[in-house]
Amino acid sequence: MTLNKNISEIGEFSLIERIKKLVPKASEDNILLGIGDDTAIIKISAQKWLLATCDIQIEDTHFRIRRSSPYQMGRRAMTVNLSDIASMGGKPTYALVSAGLPPNLEVKNFDDLFRGMSDALVEHSAFIIGGNLAHTADKLIIDVFLLGEISPNQILLRSGAKPGDRVFVTGTLGASAAGFYVLENYQKDYPEKFTHLVLSHLEPIARIETGMEIARSGYATSMIDISDGLAGDLKHICDDSNAGAEIFARNIPFPEAIDELADTISKNKLDFALHGGEDYELLFTMKPDTYSQVIEKIATETKTKITEIGRIVSKEEGYNIITTKNQRLPLQPKGWDHFG
Amino acid sequence: MTLNKNISEIGEFSLIERIKKLVPKASEDNILLGIGDDTAIIKISAQKWLLATCDIQIEDTHFRIRRSSPYQMGRRAMTVNLSDIASMGGKPTYALVSAGLPPNLEVKNFDDLFRGMSDALVEHSAFIIGGNLAHTADKLIIDVFLLGEISPNQILLRSGAKPGDRVFVTGTLGASAAGFYVLENYQKDYPEKFTHLVLSHLEPIARIETGMEIARSGYATSMIDISDGLAGDLKHICDDSNAGAEIFARNIPFPEAIDELADTISKNKLDFALHGGEDYELLFTMKPDTYSQVIEKIATETKTKITEIGRIVSKEEGYNIITTKNQRLPLQPKGWDHFG
Repeated sequence: MTLNKNISEIGEFSLIERIKKLVPKASEDNILLGIGDDTAIIKISAQKWLLATCDIQIEDTHFRIRRSSPYQMGRRAMTVNLSDIASMGGKPTYALVSAGLPPNLEVKNFDDLFRGMSDALVEHSAFIIGGNLAHTADKLIIDVFLLGEISPNQILLRSGAKPGDRVFVTGTLGASAAGFYVLENYQKDYPEKFTHLVLSHLEPIARIETGMEIARSGYATSMIDISDGLAGDLKHICDDSNAGAEIFARNIPFPEAIDELADTISKNKLDFALHGGEDYELLFTMKPDTYSQVIEKIATETKTKITEIGRIVSKEEGYNIITTKNQRLPLQPKGWDHFG
Repeated sequence: MTLNKNISEIGEFSLIERIKKLVPKASEDNILLGIGDDTAIIKISAQKWLLATCDIQIEDTHFRIRRSSPYQMGRRAMTVNLSDIASMGGKPTYALVSAGLPPNLEVKNFDDLFRGMSDALVEHSAFIIGGNLAHTADKLIIDVFLLGEISPNQILLRSGAKPGDRVFVTGTLGASAAGFYVLENYQKDYPEKFTHLVLSHLEPIARIETGMEIARSGYATSMIDISDGLAGDLKHICDDSNAGAEIFARNIPFPEAIDELADTISKNKLDFALHGGEDYELLFTMKPDTYSQVIEKIATETKTKITEIGRIVSKEEGYNIITTKNQRLPLQPKGWDHFG
């Protein structure tokens, strides 16, 4: 009997399904996306929709205090939320912050934590407008609630991709997971050549402006941010769009030094990109007839590398990766196991 | 040097002041109340303002699992937030829930937790529309982010009270603190006569409809919910309104059985009401010329007891209580020390 099991036995996905069944649903006239999505969409008026997202970060579950500075922790807690707004093409506006603070947290670290959160917001003209503070026994908890806004005719969901659409990503993939691996194995004494990887993990960037430009272009059909790895997040687009996809391994953009790391540790760098997660890059689809100038303009204006990595196909054609040796293999939508 | 102190040495109020100084402020054209208030007000349009509040509840800081059922915990976590919306006369709309879950939480308790949260919302036609789940090492964490709305011409702040205004409260005061005391001293084997007190603590009610009617009446000048005790929360109104107040002890509405509890434990019941907190009743001021019919109509329509307990005076006249023996004593705005 499920009811007597512990939650650790049934997993996050099942828990979310339980909530969906337990909780009465808001009217679809007012709420476009609700429980189960990273960001809720509230139709506040014909001209403007409100986006609302939250992400809780708990010490030792989501971050280790000894590894990142309080400023980095603050930035990261905010960036995770900003990325959810970016993934729809939205503009962040206001944040509320709930913080659970252990009694021995130093005031200067408290300051740096809030400075980090605020800096990540202010870059996008968004502001902290409230929240609450509480004491904890020993663990630091940061829970950010972020609001954003978007025009109804610009919003990008996971569900809009069609066979023939082209698949793009911003930046590079796998850097955060590789950086996490560097920290796990070298602690703070890692070779300098891996600095970029480590910083990608500790100081990810949310692609707000790029997301807004993609949404404004009029050519994009779906979007998501990569928090669980390319393989898992592209699957979300495929599932919600009732489609398949094929990805070309040779086209995946990798960060510097990942080859050297992969060689050192006898790992396949592709694993970091496909199953790594926490890159917070945007994964999006564009109509087949999108001019390359459209992409170049977005890339130039937002100073963001954008790479075409594959295409959407029919659901019957499946969900595959074309390897560098031109083999077609099923793409496994599993996320990276950080503790594996 | 403050920077090297631990946060436990400088207290919550100082921490909030630090955030205010650290964090750039949003434009007052868009944000009416920001950091430092329980609820932020976002001016989304001329017809409608958005209210946003959050409250984190952490196991062993805010509640004890062995004392209240998961359903009660869920209701309570939501009610604390609903009360912040009620305190401005607002209508709750949508909630996001962040939950940190210990691995040994049973699925049936998880269900009851969300059922409790949702039931507390649905009574006011509000809905859970999103959130996120995370694992914790051992403690349960529930953080609710609640949105509400209100017409700009109806909103009630803490800052609108004027000398001569009459002071009112809903319900009774001190029940929650008395109930907490019963649980501390008797655990679950408390005398039946104290059941109402215990339930006031475990299952508080947010005065949403009453708050909306008070705001709509056109006679109210300020409002707050009583989360820190009458003495502390009325002081917030006085400080923000640059005024004083006097309260008549004989007019304070007490719950049933509080006399018996006070006798048993040799405590003054007034302490529970003045410094108890967590009653989540509304404390509000009305213009001097408010007809008694206005109050009676609100009380009848929302089935809520409303009691006049004092009046606003000038700041120079001070902040006092008139005892049952007609002594005028300074009212100490300190909150109850639950662990004292």
